[in-house]
Amino acid sequence: MPTIRELGEDALVQQIIASLPQDERVLLGPGDDCAVVRGSENAQLLKVDAIVQDVHFTLDTEPRLIGRKALARAISDIAAMGGIPEHALVTLILPPETEASFVQQLYLGMSAIAARYEINIVGGETSRGTQMVISVALTGSASHWIRRSGGSVGDVLLVTGRLGGSIARHHLTFEPRLQQALWLGQYHRPTAMMDISDGLAKDLPRMAAACGVDFRVDVVALPCNAGCSPQRAWTDGEDYELLFAINEARVESLIHDWANAFPTVPLTIIGKLVAIGEGNAHQLAAGGWDHFA
Amino acid sequence: MPTIRELGEDALVQQIIASLPQDERVLLGPGDDCAVVRGSENAQLLKVDAIVQDVHFTLDTEPRLIGRKALARAISDIAAMGGIPEHALVTLILPPETEASFVQQLYLGMSAIAARYEINIVGGETSRGTQMVISVALTGSASHWIRRSGGSVGDVLLVTGRLGGSIARHHLTFEPRLQQALWLGQYHRPTAMMDISDGLAKDLPRMAAACGVDFRVDVVALPCNAGCSPQRAWTDGEDYELLFAINEARVESLIHDWANAFPTVPLTIIGKLVAIGEGNAHQLAAGGWDHFA
Repeated sequence: MPTIRELGEDALVQQIIASLPQDERVLLGPGDDCAVVRGSENAQLLKVDAIVQDVHFTLDTEPRLIGRKALARAISDIAAMGGIPEHALVTLILPPETEASFVQQLYLGMSAIAARYEINIVGGETSRGTQMVISVALTGSASHWIRRSGGSVGDVLLVTGRLGGSIARHHLTFEPRLQQALWLGQYHRPTAMMDISDGLAKDLPRMAAACGVDFRVDVVALPCNAGCSPQRAWTDGEDYELLFAINEARVESLIHDWANAFPTVPLTIIGKLVAIGEGNAHQLAAGGWDHFA
Repeated sequence: MPTIRELGEDALVQQIIASLPQDERVLLGPGDDCAVVRGSENAQLLKVDAIVQDVHFTLDTEPRLIGRKALARAISDIAAMGGIPEHALVTLILPPETEASFVQQLYLGMSAIAARYEINIVGGETSRGTQMVISVALTGSASHWIRRSGGSVGDVLLVTGRLGGSIARHHLTFEPRLQQALWLGQYHRPTAMMDISDGLAKDLPRMAAACGVDFRVDVVALPCNAGCSPQRAWTDGEDYELLFAINEARVESLIHDWANAFPTVPLTIIGKLVAIGEGNAHQLAAGGWDHFA
């Protein structure tokens, strides 16, 4: 048997998913940004996300920003399903020599973004460990949830914001695209949507595979952050922008309405979904972020 | 500022809890076995719990039992609120050199106990780290939930099962007292209930403090596992038995009915809740498990 480094993250996840117990209360199981289960009026979204010291942050980072990031990532996933975040639970693994003030600042950062998005932090768990880990479980609700697998051949692919170079600062300070995602779900019904967390080069193939189609993307057309090449916009991780597909007939009105609704947030057509075998993935350098590589 | 080792787990948690954002959707916030939020017909219970390599298990443990334990602990907390577990999310932090077969076995153990308790595993998160961590977020529902803070002076204290010596094997193989907890909630309405995870010596004072009362406990009367002294039954952790308080007038019928319902599970009166200043905690050796000590 291989190690998980040799196997890779996606293959590991596929192996795990194959045999999980699930019954009719589950509307959507593992493999998307969130799980979806039966709720009261609306469906309930469930998400867990973790950040690890020296993988997602370093100890010289301001602790408020570490706490902020831990929750913001999960909000981004709830947003990417077209949902509204509700309640958070926090697991903190901490080395015993951690300063109590560090933990307080971390929680202040988390509480501030929770308050901003009207999220309750309802519970948590602490344990000691050799390396700091912050795992956030977040619930949400959605009247119309958007999976990543609903796209069809011919749908146009778009991304919000600009990509690449997130490591400089954006990965700590990004604003989850919650408002934009809710607006999209309400007025323009994307056929598929996800947030870009491991880099477009990894996440777009995941979306296309989930849709059972291929993709063509124009890397030179990618919206790049200042100082970033299109290649980095393609492969860098932690953008936390929305990637979505929409019926071609709706694109023109979307672009028009978006400019009025979000004049400061770029929206860029980056390609389209095509039939299997007609994609251009093989012409693009592979890349993106594998947690075990 | 102190380190968290100096501060201790309970003080750290108190500091964190003090400033968390919460609104009217939260029926019960941090500090009990689970959080309680508004659900559809029933209240929804939310719990997160983590186990860490070399703290809660070692790598020479059978991986199926590690996975089993990770979920069983959270089930025990849902049970301790009088709830029924529903959906689980799993965060796995893994060293890249972990064998893929280890992860498969771990998930098999988790899936088996999930299936046994009709729990859906709906999602997860994986990341690399230097030390293995398994954090489980679990939802549940409860028509009548039981907090740990409802006990009054004069209420009788009872525990299920036998205590102490869990490290030998029980901490990996225990059956969460879900059936018993639901039965108690339905027929005998404990005034306060929690599961014993950090040892009675730590958990009973927490319950008494939450009730705003003191306790008297007869350590010699504690139900001990084979080979365990009453002292160890008092201080050892990871029993995962139920500790609950009940109105004195209900005790006799409870003992009678319990013997019919659960003939193989001991139920033992261990003491009672008393007015502040009338307890005997000062006569007992302190102890129990502090995660940062």
